[in-house]
Amino acid sequence: METKTTPFLRFTFILFLVIFLFTCSWYSLNLPGFSGYSQSTSWCNSRSRVCAHLGSVLETRIHKPKDHMEDIPHHPLDPLTMQEINKVRTILSTFPHFLPSFPAIHSLSLDEPHKDLVLDWKEGDPLPPRKALVIALLNGQSYVLSVDLDLGLVTSNEIYHGSGYPILTIKDISVAMQVALSYKELNKSAIKRGLSLSDLTCITPSAGWFGANEEGRRLIKVQCFSNQGTPNFYMRPLEGLTMTVDIDKKEVVQFTDTGRGIPVPRATNTDYRYQKEPPKMKPIKPISIEQPQGRSFSIEDEHIVKWANWEFHLKADQRAGIVISRAMVSDSDTGVPRSVMYKGFSSELFVPYMDPDESWYFKGYMDAGEFGMGATALSLVPLNDCPRHSYYMDAIFVSWDGKPYVQQNMICVFERYAGDISWRHSEVPVNGFNIREARPKVTLVTRMAASVGNYDYIFDWEFQTDGLIHVVVTLSGMLMVKGTPHQNTDQIPSQEAPSGPLVSENVFGVVHDHFITFHLDLDIDDTNNTFVKVNLVKEETLPGESPRKSYLKAKRNVAKTEDDARVKLNLYDPSEFHLINPSRRSRLGNLAGYKIIPAGNAASLLDHLDPPQLRSAFTNNQIWVTPYNRNEQWAGGLFTYQSKGDDTLAVWSARNRAIENTDIVLWYTLGFHHIPCQEDFPLMPAVSSSFDLKPVNFFESNPILKAAPMFEKDLPVCRSATTS
Amino acid sequence: METKTTPFLRFTFILFLVIFLFTCSWYSLNLPGFSGYSQSTSWCNSRSRVCAHLGSVLETRIHKPKDHMEDIPHHPLDPLTMQEINKVRTILSTFPHFLPSFPAIHSLSLDEPHKDLVLDWKEGDPLPPRKALVIALLNGQSYVLSVDLDLGLVTSNEIYHGSGYPILTIKDISVAMQVALSYKELNKSAIKRGLSLSDLTCITPSAGWFGANEEGRRLIKVQCFSNQGTPNFYMRPLEGLTMTVDIDKKEVVQFTDTGRGIPVPRATNTDYRYQKEPPKMKPIKPISIEQPQGRSFSIEDEHIVKWANWEFHLKADQRAGIVISRAMVSDSDTGVPRSVMYKGFSSELFVPYMDPDESWYFKGYMDAGEFGMGATALSLVPLNDCPRHSYYMDAIFVSWDGKPYVQQNMICVFERYAGDISWRHSEVPVNGFNIREARPKVTLVTRMAASVGNYDYIFDWEFQTDGLIHVVVTLSGMLMVKGTPHQNTDQIPSQEAPSGPLVSENVFGVVHDHFITFHLDLDIDDTNNTFVKVNLVKEETLPGESPRKSYLKAKRNVAKTEDDARVKLNLYDPSEFHLINPSRRSRLGNLAGYKIIPAGNAASLLDHLDPPQLRSAFTNNQIWVTPYNRNEQWAGGLFTYQSKGDDTLAVWSARNRAIENTDIVLWYTLGFHHIPCQEDFPLMPAVSSSFDLKPVNFFESNPILKAAPMFEKDLPVCRSATTS
Repeated sequence: METKTTPFLRFTFILFLVIFLFTCSWYSLNLPGFSGYSQSTSWCNSRSRVCAHLGSVLETRIHKPKDHMEDIPHHPLDPLTMQEINKVRTILSTFPHFLPSFPAIHSLSLDEPHKDLVLDWKEGDPLPPRKALVIALLNGQSYVLSVDLDLGLVTSNEIYHGSGYPILTIKDISVAMQVALSYKELNKSAIKRGLSLSDLTCITPSAGWFGANEEGRRLIKVQCFSNQGTPNFYMRPLEGLTMTVDIDKKEVVQFTDTGRGIPVPRATNTDYRYQKEPPKMKPIKPISIEQPQGRSFSIEDEHIVKWANWEFHLKADQRAGIVISRAMVSDSDTGVPRSVMYKGFSSELFVPYMDPDESWYFKGYMDAGEFGMGATALSLVPLNDCPRHSYYMDAIFVSWDGKPYVQQNMICVFERYAGDISWRHSEVPVNGFNIREARPKVTLVTRMAASVGNYDYIFDWEFQTDGLIHVVVTLSGMLMVKGTPHQNTDQIPSQEAPSGPLVSENVFGVVHDHFITFHLDLDIDDTNNTFVKVNLVKEETLPGESPRKSYLKAKRNVAKTEDDARVKLNLYDPSEFHLINPSRRSRLGNLAGYKIIPAGNAASLLDHLDPPQLRSAFTNNQIWVTPYNRNEQWAGGLFTYQSKGDDTLAVWSARNRAIENTDIVLWYTLGFHHIPCQEDFPLMPAVSSSFDLKPVNFFESNPILKAAPMFEKDLPVCRSATTS
Repeated sequence: METKTTPFLRFTFILFLVIFLFTCSWYSLNLPGFSGYSQSTSWCNSRSRVCAHLGSVLETRIHKPKDHMEDIPHHPLDPLTMQEINKVRTILSTFPHFLPSFPAIHSLSLDEPHKDLVLDWKEGDPLPPRKALVIALLNGQSYVLSVDLDLGLVTSNEIYHGSGYPILTIKDISVAMQVALSYKELNKSAIKRGLSLSDLTCITPSAGWFGANEEGRRLIKVQCFSNQGTPNFYMRPLEGLTMTVDIDKKEVVQFTDTGRGIPVPRATNTDYRYQKEPPKMKPIKPISIEQPQGRSFSIEDEHIVKWANWEFHLKADQRAGIVISRAMVSDSDTGVPRSVMYKGFSSELFVPYMDPDESWYFKGYMDAGEFGMGATALSLVPLNDCPRHSYYMDAIFVSWDGKPYVQQNMICVFERYAGDISWRHSEVPVNGFNIREARPKVTLVTRMAASVGNYDYIFDWEFQTDGLIHVVVTLSGMLMVKGTPHQNTDQIPSQEAPSGPLVSENVFGVVHDHFITFHLDLDIDDTNNTFVKVNLVKEETLPGESPRKSYLKAKRNVAKTEDDARVKLNLYDPSEFHLINPSRRSRLGNLAGYKIIPAGNAASLLDHLDPPQLRSAFTNNQIWVTPYNRNEQWAGGLFTYQSKGDDTLAVWSARNRAIENTDIVLWYTLGFHHIPCQEDFPLMPAVSSSFDLKPVNFFESNPILKAAPMFEKDLPVCRSATTS
């Protein structure tokens, strides 16, 4: 069904808001002085909504909003500053291809210097040339540009001819919403449900790729919800109503409404806001992590985090979110910092929903490449997203018009003490030894929380003094739900087999998965590393050899090529997965390494030729190892939107390149299956999973053996705030 | 090699210590007033050592040591009090079978009333009859006795004729050590290694069962280490030296020393004690969980823990350790407490080492049934094992002579705030909604730490306000290591294939597994429950049905008998595992339930007919469900020591009883493979894994939606102790 856009004047108030928001210069709106909350959070990318720069609901002092106009880069990996972004924009505005019309800027970020330049650089050295990598869209063509800031020139300029489009901008989303809301069939559908257009809030799911229909044009879906009586419109779908919008032609190319017999679920009990009325739950008395002598970490030059035996570069990326670079841990014997990870970040997400219906089949989000995990990571809520003494870091991102904006308090950094134990042992007095030794576990966390439409993804990178890096993904936010006429399971005909359980009246929670694929460029002591599977295999004893019939033996298998390094985890064929430096031996001759330790996980079971799985084929295994290639950062391809899956990790790995004793990258996918239940309505309690990167024969011995215990005399003296 | 015991006078000093320790009445040694630490910790069961009642190394005030002589039971599940234990002893001492000689008491604990009596009991009701279950050994015969405390009678008395023996007592261990240390061949072996007997510390591994040799007599192994220059004797084995002692005949029945060419590893850098000298590591500034308005939990009648929406009975068991009973969570709508778990505890552990050698093959410990997880859980170290504001609970245990003793501060209870998030969502202003909502996660933890010889097992039962129970097992302590002539990997001949990596000079860390099997008697709302596997299966679409080729469907499979409920976890055949109440439906018609959610796990790969695996066949699956049977508490059988595996969970389950809509018990095994590395030397940084019990359609909606956020104004006002 092809139709032309019809302007719809009743929505000028929404359009005004949209236009206002993405044309103002966010950073100039900062209020001076201590602010009670984030004043200028600018969020310009999501499948659902528009930029914002209003306050937090929970008011707490954080720190003085920073004026980033004077920021200068100190480290080769420091993100582009506001001044640099403005300079890139100026350079682009005189670039011949972009005259007379300036393109839409879909990505503008530091083009990181080559690794050898970064590794050679030392504090005090001049920075390597500052360059920007720009992805711009003009007249339907995707440009990939390299801009040299020192030369003031576009140094390379390619038009991309492969499949897929760049990440969405806020302009794309607002255009799609404008087109959809102006479409008269939508108004009819709303009226048939007893709603007016002003009752609607619409979201913009990505269209995916399923064949010729999604080729040669940028499409986006628009689906709407009733916002009447609740801010939690996600729980009130206009089921079966889907518009497909051609973003560039600004027209609705398909309109379907198959759900007119399905009521819009009610608003009752869906509001999750704290309304300043006493909460229903029995209150828990105030509790806080306190450190009155201050933090034990420092952040130098805005990005270098130093804590205990760790040092790393921390920054925000509009697509990936948190990026950890140059992570080094001090040798416990010599004190010398040793390389652990050159770069670690969440490269892509894949969130397939398990419903083949017209309004659901396309929901196979690739959130990083389609919407941006950094872009959707709004200001954290102090005391509630992060504990009291957290440090908050702003991000400098770029809007569709090439202008920089500040995403305030996007990352928090804090020391975590949860009452846990880092090591312990008790002995009783045998030969005079009476021992009760234990050491508390204090760690350093860097955190962000991306709200990609309905879902919230909290990412923690936690550093331990024993050298372990614990990476946690926590899910919260709202389900993507499906309307149904049913109010009780006994009304569901047995042949119906809905795509998920009934989680409220007229609401199905649709089964779905989440996969988060991490790019882990470990460099253990140096760049040349080797991946070793240490397989535990059952050995049988010979008759008479032993009273035991069987035992396990650890067998080391060196991965020579990429084929050897694809791993599907199997409880009954267990291995450890080591990344070792074949040139660095301990005093005992063991090879220095780190291992990746999975915890809970889930695998994608979709058909490998199913289009969403083809595009997200990086989830076909839990572990992959590739040779380092600076163009292989994004597991779903640089151009993810509507891609055909021809530039994924799976495609790169299929080349079966040599990976032994060379610079390699480890990829790990953390998965969740989610069968919803009533407890997930109207907002989900947080669910976490994690993995660890852990030293293995990296240190000569336990590096925290000499850690100090806690003593009462050192602990804070606290009183209740209410007694003051 | 059979030999007779030879007394050895040089060790009277050790013998004196041993005899002194297990004949004194521990509880009478308590010092009055505030003690700086645990004064009277009595620990009377381990494979390695003897009782202790000396102070903690780290001195901190906890609470006034309690005189438990006046304790009275308040709840049907309250453990036996000291008075009750003494009364049982008096009753037993006049029992005709035990005249003239009093038996060795291997177990003496509350014979819990039948479940219906406990469920019917209400506060204020008289307690059901108090009974003790006693396992005693006399003249080689195991007695199982029931003692009625009200009647003052032994009401039943059976002699056990099956395989296996009761749990070891401290007397068994001290006898074995005495016999071994008096054996002249040991002295010769020591001298050949340049050691004298007083340099030795010996441990007593269980002998296991491998055939006729381990039948009809109680055997124990004794292996020795050099304690010279270090309290960490575990790192200094006299490799290849093993004695087998007949505990009742008090004689060495086998002596082997195959390791005389293997040096005793050096003591250097093995001491882990905090020596009050400044630690080597860069210090972390004081950090603490503070709650100046006090705790939000209460402990009533010594054992009833009430916190937020939770209430449960907490006690210590000499064999199992922490026992959680009658766990109930309040309905978030009605406030009415609802049953979740009748009883949960760690039923058995299995720790097989992967070396078939003469000195190693038998190491397949079953720590709960052989040594006792409660018995080996010594006093916790305040501030370091548990955070500052913890509540400490004592245990009343029973010594081999039937006398009670106090295991002080064996369990801690505390509120945990780690800076984590219980739920969150951000919205940006669309139609007026500008939302940043987040709630902090505060939980309640009960913890103990068992030091079963070298290894430390920390058990956490963590309760969340969203109804989730998070069970964590953390491993620390020392490796069981193997001596070797090699000091570097390049000295190891390729054909040698050692049973683990070199972790220090002359020290191999032997590969091993840990399996902890939990007895989880969930009673969701009532006793009659059903186990449902909710399997996620791939469905293929029909041609033309959808642009999608495949999707997942959740299919419910009700387990009718025990056969249906044995689960080997498989990433590529995933299920959720629900325990539901088929009579309790939510308002939507969903069945109220809880699900068990595995996290990281490991499976036993040993041959099912290998004797250690046969005895620990409860690890053949990760999940089992059995009908409730009060005699099926111990997954490895009531008489675990030298058992043949004829009374395990696997044997019970093989009966394939009906389990639908009846009182059922869920069993879950949490496993770890451990390939040691240098970081584990000389003491291991803690390693954790966990599982969750989580409500699924148990609540009508998210039970913590109305939880309050944290506000700055409520938080504590703290200053540094050093500025006071």
